[in-house]
Amino acid sequence: MFKKILIANRGEIALRVIRACREMGIRSVAVHSTADNNSMHVRLADESICIGPASSRESYLNMPAIVSAATIVGADAIHPGVGFLSENAEFVRMVEEHNFVFIGPSAEHTRIMGDKITAKQAVKQFGIPVVPGMERAVTSNEEAHAFCNDAGFPVLIKAAGGGGGKGMQIVYRPESLTEALLVARNEAKVNFGNDQVFIEKFLVTPRHIEIQVLADHHGNVVHLGERDCSIQRRHQKVWEEAPSPALDDKTRSELGELVVKAVKGLGYRGVGTFEFLYENGEFYFIEMNTRIQVEHPVTEMITGIDLVRAQILVASGEKLPFTQEDIQFRGHAIECRINAEDPETFFPSPGKVTSYHTPGGLGVRIDSHLYNGYSVPPHYDSLVSKLIVFGDTRQQAIQRVNRALREYVIGGISTNIPLHQKLCTLPAMASGDYNIHWLEEWLAQQAAEKNEKEVNDPSSE
Amino acid sequence: MFKKILIANRGEIALRVIRACREMGIRSVAVHSTADNNSMHVRLADESICIGPASSRESYLNMPAIVSAATIVGADAIHPGVGFLSENAEFVRMVEEHNFVFIGPSAEHTRIMGDKITAKQAVKQFGIPVVPGMERAVTSNEEAHAFCNDAGFPVLIKAAGGGGGKGMQIVYRPESLTEALLVARNEAKVNFGNDQVFIEKFLVTPRHIEIQVLADHHGNVVHLGERDCSIQRRHQKVWEEAPSPALDDKTRSELGELVVKAVKGLGYRGVGTFEFLYENGEFYFIEMNTRIQVEHPVTEMITGIDLVRAQILVASGEKLPFTQEDIQFRGHAIECRINAEDPETFFPSPGKVTSYHTPGGLGVRIDSHLYNGYSVPPHYDSLVSKLIVFGDTRQQAIQRVNRALREYVIGGISTNIPLHQKLCTLPAMASGDYNIHWLEEWLAQQAAEKNEKEVNDPSSE
Repeated sequence: MFKKILIANRGEIALRVIRACREMGIRSVAVHSTADNNSMHVRLADESICIGPASSRESYLNMPAIVSAATIVGADAIHPGVGFLSENAEFVRMVEEHNFVFIGPSAEHTRIMGDKITAKQAVKQFGIPVVPGMERAVTSNEEAHAFCNDAGFPVLIKAAGGGGGKGMQIVYRPESLTEALLVARNEAKVNFGNDQVFIEKFLVTPRHIEIQVLADHHGNVVHLGERDCSIQRRHQKVWEEAPSPALDDKTRSELGELVVKAVKGLGYRGVGTFEFLYENGEFYFIEMNTRIQVEHPVTEMITGIDLVRAQILVASGEKLPFTQEDIQFRGHAIECRINAEDPETFFPSPGKVTSYHTPGGLGVRIDSHLYNGYSVPPHYDSLVSKLIVFGDTRQQAIQRVNRALREYVIGGISTNIPLHQKLCTLPAMASGDYNIHWLEEWLAQQAAEKNEKEVNDPSSE
Repeated sequence: MFKKILIANRGEIALRVIRACREMGIRSVAVHSTADNNSMHVRLADESICIGPASSRESYLNMPAIVSAATIVGADAIHPGVGFLSENAEFVRMVEEHNFVFIGPSAEHTRIMGDKITAKQAVKQFGIPVVPGMERAVTSNEEAHAFCNDAGFPVLIKAAGGGGGKGMQIVYRPESLTEALLVARNEAKVNFGNDQVFIEKFLVTPRHIEIQVLADHHGNVVHLGERDCSIQRRHQKVWEEAPSPALDDKTRSELGELVVKAVKGLGYRGVGTFEFLYENGEFYFIEMNTRIQVEHPVTEMITGIDLVRAQILVASGEKLPFTQEDIQFRGHAIECRINAEDPETFFPSPGKVTSYHTPGGLGVRIDSHLYNGYSVPPHYDSLVSKLIVFGDTRQQAIQRVNRALREYVIGGISTNIPLHQKLCTLPAMASGDYNIHWLEEWLAQQAAEKNEKEVNDPSSE
């Protein structure tokens, strides 16, 4: 087993890894920028080393500085956390070239999964469903109709040379297809000088459902069920839960087995997540994350398995200490991402935390690097805490998260706690009947109602 | 279901009940003494009412004041918490006479179990083993020998009219019995004017093992496994765990079934705990607690069941929402009682908390009424926090509690956190091979070693 692990990250995820190290009797080394001199990960680690100025590019993304730090402190292994260099194949290669263990998959798997096109190709061969799409540009209306009738409407027409949404057409009915193709081709030609277009199936109201996997170096692979991360704003997950309110046991284990087969086929090792869109009973692979994820705690709560500990174990070459049959799901878990931001405008709200009190009691877990007197620097991600709850049932979990949010005191900065509190009370959350667009639609509706109120009552503030 | 519950308690247990109420949509009412004006239970409850001055006798033990408070706020039910009036049959009667629901058993069950003699008689009839003892005073040496050979040595000779340890003799071998009886009779006569003596089996190194039960008003009873509370100092539990390192599945379910049979036979309702001494594979009932216990969280962690919620549910007349078969044990849980006291002298250490930061992360639960700036009053119990951890295995739980204790910051007052930290590192704790005398013996040994050091090196501080 490793004696010393350097953690190439900051914030709550660095704390998460430090805690796992402590429990395993491994020394932990924090790296930090000058803006993070007083950060909790620096305080809690056994050793710390400054790797550069506040700018991420010069510190947490500074590969030579991190590898030098690992050399200086005599680390055996480097844990990349999430974000920053955690999915950078070049970093993996550099780490390994310097004879440190990278706590994650091989550089090659990182590279393949880092590109959505190669990732889709890689998993398709193992029977993982992807969004159906034509494999070459449309050459005739007949061909387009044949594909669309097969894949089902609505479909999305995309410019081959395009990007940024230009030249895209959503088509809901067969009778509109011919005209839409004409419009799309013209638009593509005007914008990109190339009138070639592709067609793929368009998902209207999908859920985001992802499967957690864990693989050792000896060919043993397990899945740990799914997480539902459909509550998103601008593609940022806000609220995650496990299990998904939309899956039954049979669907879960079928999808899980399919993913395990793919992981075995790929020869992948470490923790990883297969992300899918889910609509009308069908799954569509979108990407694979080759690292621990921010929302991993909800899986830990319902399985009782420490994922970071397991990740470190398998990286050191140990065999998985459990089999698929050992993994039992119990109860329901929810994670609220607490961001330092205005709950209405979503502008970041860095600054000094002038009071801090965390909720406690049964089923409440806090993963946070905040402390009383800490100054949240403006340079990094606004995630400052994860509130995770466990309940016997989904309903109890929602009641508990609501209760815990009311106890949580973070003074001096704004956070999105009020938004999470509102979410707890909404029928769509109670029923679990939501999709990846639901939160943005609800926020837009709230904003519209507020505007209308102000227009009707100009005296109100 | 109740609309409003008055909580006749303070500190962390009042918070525990407030949290359950919030999650169930029930309004909570805190009562408090003038010393607790700024207590967390007052801050978190939906309503609060002052019931008297600092002295417990005039506030938290003031039955008329509490019942008046319940009348004033229009509560439906009263939750007694632990300690104070929670096992006072007169209080139960008064609460019920004023048409409030007492969240606990009947006054009659409270009375029976409140007296160790009647409690033993009550449970014996259902086959619960008690410490073997002669049912009347010794009349002949032959009779005494017969009993002792049957019960097994060592035995304890007790004066019939005695108390306070006077006239007690521990006898380890049959050949010492006759003489010990003579000595005990003489001593009894001198001290109490009555030379009658009894004999009971003496347990040398027993463990304290207790079984948690839960019964509704419809005859449904379940047990939730055991807790091992052998780590004690002056009969105060310090560290509790579930499951016990000393029990196997078969023993657990046999004892559990026996206890369930007794609870059914008694017609008992609510939560309750059967406390046993356990030595050489035999259990000996010592008493029953007719309330929720301080150490209930370890059971919650390994069963996933919210005991206070269940307690409130059954008190309102609802049926138990699960059967014995639904109750599955997973992993291992440990509770450290954090007291405001000097970790070496055990003198209470009330005062102002000048900094406060709780540990977080996977498997860590804090039940505490402390907050930054709070003044721990000198009038009440020194328990200020319960640190509860869950681990996949006992070893992981110990590693985690050790890690969490290192993160816990309580400034301004002394606590026994250093004692708990030491405990985590000791071989007897790692092996689980301890009994109810182990902690006191270890503490005495530490004190002796310290004294010796000081004697040998007078220059050391």
